[in-house]
Amino acid sequence: MKINSQRLWKSLMDMAKIGATEKGGNTRLALTDLDVQGRQLLIQWANEIGLSVRYDAIGNLFLRKSGIADFAAPVVMGSHLDTQPKGGRFDGIYGVLAGLEVLRSLHDHQVQNYYPIELAVWMNEEGARFTPAMMGSAVFTGIFDLQQVLETTDKSGLSVQSELNRTQQQGDLELGRKFTAYYEAHIEQGPVLEQQQNQIGVVTGGQGILWLDVQTTGKAAHAGTTPMKMRKDSMVGTAKMIVALEKMVWEKFPDGLITFGEMSIANSSRNTIPAQIKWTIDLRHPNDQKLLAMKEQTHEILVFFAKQNDLSVDIVEHWHSPATYFDSVLINTVRESVQELGLSHQDIVSGAGHDAINLAKHCPTTMIFIPCEGGLSHNEAENITTEQAQHGADVLLNAILKFDQQRLAEAS
Amino acid sequence: MKINSQRLWKSLMDMAKIGATEKGGNTRLALTDLDVQGRQLLIQWANEIGLSVRYDAIGNLFLRKSGIADFAAPVVMGSHLDTQPKGGRFDGIYGVLAGLEVLRSLHDHQVQNYYPIELAVWMNEEGARFTPAMMGSAVFTGIFDLQQVLETTDKSGLSVQSELNRTQQQGDLELGRKFTAYYEAHIEQGPVLEQQQNQIGVVTGGQGILWLDVQTTGKAAHAGTTPMKMRKDSMVGTAKMIVALEKMVWEKFPDGLITFGEMSIANSSRNTIPAQIKWTIDLRHPNDQKLLAMKEQTHEILVFFAKQNDLSVDIVEHWHSPATYFDSVLINTVRESVQELGLSHQDIVSGAGHDAINLAKHCPTTMIFIPCEGGLSHNEAENITTEQAQHGADVLLNAILKFDQQRLAEAS
Repeated sequence: MKINSQRLWKSLMDMAKIGATEKGGNTRLALTDLDVQGRQLLIQWANEIGLSVRYDAIGNLFLRKSGIADFAAPVVMGSHLDTQPKGGRFDGIYGVLAGLEVLRSLHDHQVQNYYPIELAVWMNEEGARFTPAMMGSAVFTGIFDLQQVLETTDKSGLSVQSELNRTQQQGDLELGRKFTAYYEAHIEQGPVLEQQQNQIGVVTGGQGILWLDVQTTGKAAHAGTTPMKMRKDSMVGTAKMIVALEKMVWEKFPDGLITFGEMSIANSSRNTIPAQIKWTIDLRHPNDQKLLAMKEQTHEILVFFAKQNDLSVDIVEHWHSPATYFDSVLINTVRESVQELGLSHQDIVSGAGHDAINLAKHCPTTMIFIPCEGGLSHNEAENITTEQAQHGADVLLNAILKFDQQRLAEAS
Repeated sequence: MKINSQRLWKSLMDMAKIGATEKGGNTRLALTDLDVQGRQLLIQWANEIGLSVRYDAIGNLFLRKSGIADFAAPVVMGSHLDTQPKGGRFDGIYGVLAGLEVLRSLHDHQVQNYYPIELAVWMNEEGARFTPAMMGSAVFTGIFDLQQVLETTDKSGLSVQSELNRTQQQGDLELGRKFTAYYEAHIEQGPVLEQQQNQIGVVTGGQGILWLDVQTTGKAAHAGTTPMKMRKDSMVGTAKMIVALEKMVWEKFPDGLITFGEMSIANSSRNTIPAQIKWTIDLRHPNDQKLLAMKEQTHEILVFFAKQNDLSVDIVEHWHSPATYFDSVLINTVRESVQELGLSHQDIVSGAGHDAINLAKHCPTTMIFIPCEGGLSHNEAENITTEQAQHGADVLLNAILKFDQQRLAEAS
């Protein structure tokens, strides 16, 4: 079975008109009027195929197609409709509208699904208006406390609760209710699929992430009067650390990532040897054991070069998010669907955060990636082709059907 | 002949009371009431030994002891009385009061000097209130334009001209008049003499300085979704450049210095690969040819690593100050005096800027360095011992006498 590619693309383009930016992007921050307009358009489409419409206490929106076993926990597809300020037209939105297109196609073909099938629109995935990100799915799965999140305010002082009231996006659907499975389609937001010329990424999980705050301390001294051999130069020491750390990851952790995103020199001046440098290390690996090994080797390298360069080094673990391993049964439904559809594909690990990372703690979960132009995301120039959109939705449809029919066969 | 060590130290301590800071330092910014109080105390001391008092159009102050050949261009000692905000008690002040002590000692011993001998107090050496630094000596030697400098304003909008009027520090003594010789005693402001346990630094010149502004540009990308091999990571590239540049100076330029004092990442974020980094390189060498060779090799290294790491690099020459070579005759009067006084010593090159660097473009010039505690300067904790103060002034006295007597012998 295949989805209706033209209809999917038209829906994507119609949704992109709401909060459209001059340079072809979208701005629909969570629980703003534009965000609600987007949800209303989706609900209008849902009504056309007879889906029920429900909300939970944190403003997650669920559209439901009944199943033969309507008492059973639903199979859920989903993503988000909110965007970054001057974000793209597809990040999140693609997953929601691919899910809608799956439900429309099931409706077209009058498919009698065993499980009820729902489409979830998670509230405030981006975290651009209310922080932190992935708020709705985190409250749903019990990772965040509902009351605390409702009291969170945006920059103008408006709380999540008051905005839920104003926009009427709050309902009484049970938080944390059971899901049989969760599938999320998403643009890759990275360059791998495009570069490898693969049409589909079979997502096997999410990377573990470790954020370190590092401070290297030497001694401030005059650039003109301090001989090289009398220096405690924290900039040269830090540079040696960065070079060695990057080399370590290249040589020992082929699937690892290391990034040095922030650096600031205290009281910096062109002709003063830097005394104190604060910088950050972002370590990622799809395997938790490997991530911890990377962390240990990072510590060793920092301590070695601090000693070698007569510096002190402080290392603080800022954040640690263990790796996510998606459900093998669901991954197989995706892989088999891709193969049956004859699409080029590869296994891939999600490098960015997604609602699916939260859902994986709650129920069997997986994701489907499609390529995006130049790997660009969180950017008005974010782009995909109609074919790419079609491929991901075809896979989503067939994976859902495969999962549903497998369980139906088991149940009968 | 030796100076009166106790009298010198008492004068240093009396001067340090004017603008004293809580932590034992001094704040006397140029042409403030405190700066003028310092000058008035000096003039009071000058009057006690019959020195004449004159000012030029930029507020440089000259105290003069007549000579047998009073028509001849004077032999001049000098430095400055202004300080950094929360600066030290000796930077500049030591050179002025060592000069005063030389004149007092000549007066004590009723020495009939051949040349007139003057003590110069240069206006605004520090550049802390009015920029740039070394203002008075630069105007005197014609490096800066008088009118332009007079119109320079401080942060509150007050001009040099208005402050010269208010404080009555302007006179009509000719700018750029001929000097027979210029000697400046100064604390080293670096750690070399202390570390080498030498009592005197025979200063042979000033380093050449080259300031480069560098910008390394790669591509911003998501730390989680961009594989290592698809990155254009300007931070890793910049770190490799810094490591290679420091190695180059260590291995090929034993007397060279390299410092990376400033660095800023555009739109930095912990989980974004840095796209654009602006940073600075401060290159120094006492030999101009070597400095230019350092610059060329710096360019080569930057271009090499930019290419290797798929980055672009922009290099702008921000400032170039060629090396200064002090006068060999004057250097010899210092070296011989040190030897006759039995003081431990070494040749040294000035790493910091001094009025003497400007004067060297105008007349035969040299400097005498004494150690300072921990090499610390521009700091309230700046410190020297009474013995260190004495040694420098003894050398200054004997070098001046030697110069005067050599010329007297030649003249007769």
